[in-house]
Amino acid sequence: MNSQEETMPGKSPIRPTDDEARALARRLIDQAPFGALGVIDHETGTPMATRVAVGTDAQGCPVSLVSDLSAHTRALKANPACSLLVGEPMEKGDPLTHPRVTVQATARFLRKGEEGYDAMRARWLSNHRKSALYIDFLDFSFIMLEVEGAYLNGGFGKAFVLTPADLGL
Amino acid sequence: MNSQEETMPGKSPIRPTDDEARALARRLIDQAPFGALGVIDHETGTPMATRVAVGTDAQGCPVSLVSDLSAHTRALKANPACSLLVGEPMEKGDPLTHPRVTVQATARFLRKGEEGYDAMRARWLSNHRKSALYIDFLDFSFIMLEVEGAYLNGGFGKAFVLTPADLGL
Repeated sequence: MNSQEETMPGKSPIRPTDDEARALARRLIDQAPFGALGVIDHETGTPMATRVAVGTDAQGCPVSLVSDLSAHTRALKANPACSLLVGEPMEKGDPLTHPRVTVQATARFLRKGEEGYDAMRARWLSNHRKSALYIDFLDFSFIMLEVEGAYLNGGFGKAFVLTPADLGL
Repeated sequence: MNSQEETMPGKSPIRPTDDEARALARRLIDQAPFGALGVIDHETGTPMATRVAVGTDAQGCPVSLVSDLSAHTRALKANPACSLLVGEPMEKGDPLTHPRVTVQATARFLRKGEEGYDAMRARWLSNHRKSALYIDFLDFSFIMLEVEGAYLNGGFGKAFVLTPADLGL
């Protein structure tokens, strides 16, 4: 068989979830300073991928800080379904071999004055110090991502489907 | 007025498009080794953001090389609308201040044996040498992104809406 006739081994690239996969996904989420947010544009019904800052709440759920003036925030107000890709390659090499995780979630807005906002603001500023410049602008709020599942790609051909429980959520 | 009462200056953060914005967006696309692809999962109707390798065709349209075994490829076969975020921060600092562009597009598959495939394969391998390991696997094909528009964020508060013509397409 020459290479033109080969396919990836097996038809499903999904591997059984193990503790190593769980720990890798958790670490990618915990350490992500930013990510790519996928939403659906409410006017066109088409997908949109944008960069967002990323943090976590005290339970480990992904969180972002977004502006009402941004297209992704308008989209999420109409349809809170979203997807967050984290785990950015910071070195050279084939970026498809670098581990990353796609989190499927529903976004819930958390605004100033609402229960939990002050604690989340303090937590966010403790590791996103530069956002002190704009966090108190009236158009900014947190989006708390209620995780429904995740796809971990630990490198070429190493894919896992994770549940919230696999992420400790 | 204290900081709690401020908002971003003006209600629309979109600036008039100029040649500097056009050149920046073009450069971000031309130099991207990878990006985040936004698609709509055909089974759930929810957005999904995944990492893909990125190149361009001879006209400068964004291109990726994808596997039929991946969730984004299955999604694109059912609904070719997609969004590609490129321009990844490679240094320290607030990732929201780093320029990036979101391209709104429709994906067209280009498979081995189809017109233009061989030229695209040669072009792709010239600057994605590591993908020689899998480019000829039967489950791989190119997706050619027919651009409908783009959102450039040149840093905090510097947003532009671009047409295909602004990108030379």
